[in-house]
Amino acid sequence: MNSGEFRRRGKEMVDYVADYLEGIEGRQVYPDVEPGYLRPLIPASAPEEPDTFEDILNDVEKIIMPGAASPACTELETVMMDWLGKMLKLPDAFLAGQAGEGGGVIQGSASEATLVALLAARTKVVSRLQAASPGLTQGAIMEKLVAYTSDQAHSSVERAGLIGGVKLKTIPSDGKFAMRASALQEVLERDKAEGLIPFFVVATLGTTSCCSFDNLLEVGPICNKEDMWLHIDAAYAGSSFICPEFRHLLNGVEFADSFNFNPHKWLLVNFDCSAMWVKKRADLIGAFKLDPLYLKHNHQDSGLITDYRHWQLPLGRRFRSLKMWFVFRMYGVRGLQAHIRKHVQLAHEFESLVRQDPRFEICAEVTLGLVCFRLKGSNKLNEDLLERINSARKIHLVPCHLRDKFVLRFAICSRSVELAHVQRGWEHIRQLTTDLLRAERD
Amino acid sequence: MNSGEFRRRGKEMVDYVADYLEGIEGRQVYPDVEPGYLRPLIPASAPEEPDTFEDILNDVEKIIMPGAASPACTELETVMMDWLGKMLKLPDAFLAGQAGEGGGVIQGSASEATLVALLAARTKVVSRLQAASPGLTQGAIMEKLVAYTSDQAHSSVERAGLIGGVKLKTIPSDGKFAMRASALQEVLERDKAEGLIPFFVVATLGTTSCCSFDNLLEVGPICNKEDMWLHIDAAYAGSSFICPEFRHLLNGVEFADSFNFNPHKWLLVNFDCSAMWVKKRADLIGAFKLDPLYLKHNHQDSGLITDYRHWQLPLGRRFRSLKMWFVFRMYGVRGLQAHIRKHVQLAHEFESLVRQDPRFEICAEVTLGLVCFRLKGSNKLNEDLLERINSARKIHLVPCHLRDKFVLRFAICSRSVELAHVQRGWEHIRQLTTDLLRAERD
Repeated sequence: MNSGEFRRRGKEMVDYVADYLEGIEGRQVYPDVEPGYLRPLIPASAPEEPDTFEDILNDVEKIIMPGAASPACTELETVMMDWLGKMLKLPDAFLAGQAGEGGGVIQGSASEATLVALLAARTKVVSRLQAASPGLTQGAIMEKLVAYTSDQAHSSVERAGLIGGVKLKTIPSDGKFAMRASALQEVLERDKAEGLIPFFVVATLGTTSCCSFDNLLEVGPICNKEDMWLHIDAAYAGSSFICPEFRHLLNGVEFADSFNFNPHKWLLVNFDCSAMWVKKRADLIGAFKLDPLYLKHNHQDSGLITDYRHWQLPLGRRFRSLKMWFVFRMYGVRGLQAHIRKHVQLAHEFESLVRQDPRFEICAEVTLGLVCFRLKGSNKLNEDLLERINSARKIHLVPCHLRDKFVLRFAICSRSVELAHVQRGWEHIRQLTTDLLRAERD
Repeated sequence: MNSGEFRRRGKEMVDYVADYLEGIEGRQVYPDVEPGYLRPLIPASAPEEPDTFEDILNDVEKIIMPGAASPACTELETVMMDWLGKMLKLPDAFLAGQAGEGGGVIQGSASEATLVALLAARTKVVSRLQAASPGLTQGAIMEKLVAYTSDQAHSSVERAGLIGGVKLKTIPSDGKFAMRASALQEVLERDKAEGLIPFFVVATLGTTSCCSFDNLLEVGPICNKEDMWLHIDAAYAGSSFICPEFRHLLNGVEFADSFNFNPHKWLLVNFDCSAMWVKKRADLIGAFKLDPLYLKHNHQDSGLITDYRHWQLPLGRRFRSLKMWFVFRMYGVRGLQAHIRKHVQLAHEFESLVRQDPRFEICAEVTLGLVCFRLKGSNKLNEDLLERINSARKIHLVPCHLRDKFVLRFAICSRSVELAHVQRGWEHIRQLTTDLLRAERD
C-alpha cells in the first residue's frame, strides 16, 4: 500500500470506528454465532496473490463483526495460525484443523513462548515421575531437573530456566556456532550419571549473534529418545521458511514438541506477534488450567473449541490475529516471499562488498539477512570503529562476541530498505574506517 | 472527545503517520538526547483540568520525537507511572522520582504482575536463606516455600504459584469476604510449626466475585513482621483510589512491597495497561537480570536510568505510556474522577432499584461499580434467571458463587453508560423475572 492509499484507507477506518461507536446501541451485546462458525467462512490457507483492501474490509463486516470479540478473536487466531503453519510447511501435527491435538497460539514474545514451553515440559515430567513413584514430591524432582541449550542461545532461555526454578546448562557450539549431537550427548551422559533428570532442550534456528542454526536432525532424535521436550526458537529466521529455498533450514522440526517464531520481526506484522505451535495442546493446558466460575462457559476444550487463556501467561488477550489476517491478504504469500528474498539478497550484496575490501573479514556464514563482519585486527580497533559508526548517527549497528572476537553486525530489517541504502551504508563504513586507520597511524 | 472531533483528529493522525513515513530518510537513526532528558520537559504531575488535543500533539512532536523509541518509551513510562502513583497518593517509596529506589512499570496484565512479584519474592527469600545457610540448595528451599491469598482471590494467584513452583494456600475470608489477621495468623503458625517457610502474601482490594476488600491494616503488619513479601492486587478497584472519598480503601498500602491495578479496566486507557509499582526496584531486577553483549548499553541502572526488561517477563516492549499520557491529559484528573464517580453512583442507583423489589436480595456491600444480587430462593432459580437474561442478548451478566450461593453480578463498566441504560436494564430483569416466576408456577 502506497502513501496515498494509506491516507485514504486510514481515514475510512477512522470513520468506520466512529460509525461503529455512534451506532453501538443498535448492536447485540452478545453474538448469535455458534462455536466453530468462523472456519467455514474463511479459506483453508493464505492467498498466493494479494487481496484488495476493500475485500478484506468487507470480510471484517461480514465475518468478524457478527462474532464480536468472542468467539471471533479466538477462532480467527486458530485459523491464522493454521494459515501460517501451512505457509511454513509445518508437519500436520502442529495444526489445529477441525479436531487436531496440536495448534498455534499468539504469544507476546519469544521469551514468553520459551517459558511457556519450559513450564509445560516441567509439568509433564513431574507428572510422569510422580505417576511412576507416587512418593516423590515436586520439589525433590525439580531439584534434579536440567534443561539444555546452546552457548549461542538467546538470554531469554537462561531467564526461562531462572523463572521455572530449574537448572539450565549450555552446550558448547561447534565451529559454525551450531549445537551438535556429540556435545549434547556428552553433557547428557554426565548429568544422568550424576542423577540429574534431563527434561527440556531449546534449539535455536537463526541465533541472535550470527544467525547460526542448531543441527535439528542430530539433536531432535536424541530429545525423542531421552523423552526430553524439544522447543525450537526461530524468532528471527522463522519468517524465511515461507520460501521453499529456505525451508530446508527447518528440517527436523518433526522431532519438536513446540516451535516458535516472531512474525513481528520479519513478516511485516506489527509488534507484538510471536507465533507458537505445539503438537499436543493438552500438554500446555495441563500446566496452566484453572477454572473458576466467573471464567466458565458452556463449551469444553476440544478440537473445535480453543480456550487460549490456558495456553499462555496472561489471562486477557488482544485481537492480534486481525493484523495477521490483514497482512497475509494484503501481500499474499508471494508478496511476503518477495520481501524475505529481497532482504536476503541485499545481505549478500553487502557481504560481497565487504569481501572486496581486504581490510575486512566475514565472520560467519551469511544465510539470511544478517552479515557478521569485522576489521582484521584487534577487538579494540573494531570497538573504535563501532563507536565512530554509531556516533555518526547515519546507520546503527549492534555488535556481538563470536568466541573471543568482537564482531559488527549489519542487519537488513527495514520494510523500505533498497540497494542504494546498503551501498551508501557500506561507503559510509569504508570512509569511517579510512579515517580511523589514519588516526591510528598518526 | 465527541464523535465529530474524533473523526477530525483521527484523520489528522493518519496524515501524521503518512508524513512521518514519507520523510523518514531525513531523520537520524539514533537520537541525540541524553538519558533523563524527558522528565524536565514534562510537568511533575497530571493536570487537574483537560489539555487540548492540539497541545498534546505538539508535545509529541517536541518531546517524544527527538527521543525516538529509546529512551522516550522508557522515560515517558517512568514519568507516567509517577503521575499515576501521585493520583492514587501512593507512598513516596513507590515512586521513581529522580533517584528513588522504587518505581512503576506497565505490565500486560494483573496475572503477570502477580507472577513477577512472586518470582521476586522467591528470589529474595532464597538468597536470604542461602546467605544464612550456604549449604542449602534452591530446590530444598523451594520445597518448603508457601504463599498465601484469600479464598476470594483471583485464579491468577493460584496460577502464579503453579508457575513459580511453590505451594499456595488460601485463607478463609470473613463474613464480608475479606482476609483478616486472625485467619492468616492461624494458618501461618501451623505452617511454621510444620517447618514450612511462609514468604509471600497476595491481598486483594476489590475481589472479582463481589468487590470485597482484604483488611490491609491487619494483614500488612503481619507480613512485615514475618518478612513475607506483600503484593496487593487491586486490578479493578485501583482506579477508584484517584477519588479522595475512596482513597481510604487503599490504607495499608504502606506495608506492601508491590502494588498493581489495571488502568485498562476502569481508567479509560485501552487494553492492555496494567500498572505495577515496587518499593525496591533492586528486588525485581535481582530475579531477572541477565546481560548479554547484544543488549548492553552505555548506561547502568540507577534512579536516572531504568531498564524495564529486568522488570518483566518479555524482553520486547510496546510504547504503552503514550496512551496513558493522552488519556490523563485529555480528561484531566477531574475528568477521570468524574468517570469513576458516575459509575459508582449508577451502581448505587441499581442497588436501590433492587432493594425496592422484595423478590430480590443484595448479596454483598456495594462499594464501587459492582452490584451482587439474586432472587430470594434456590440457586436453580437464579441459574434459570441468568439463562433467560443472557439468552435475550440485551444485557450480559457474569455470575459468581458467594459461599454456597449462586449470585448475579451487575457491573457498570462502559465508558458511555447512562442512568437510562441502568434503568432499562433493571426493567428488563424485572420483566424476565416475572416471566420466570410465572412459568415456575404453571
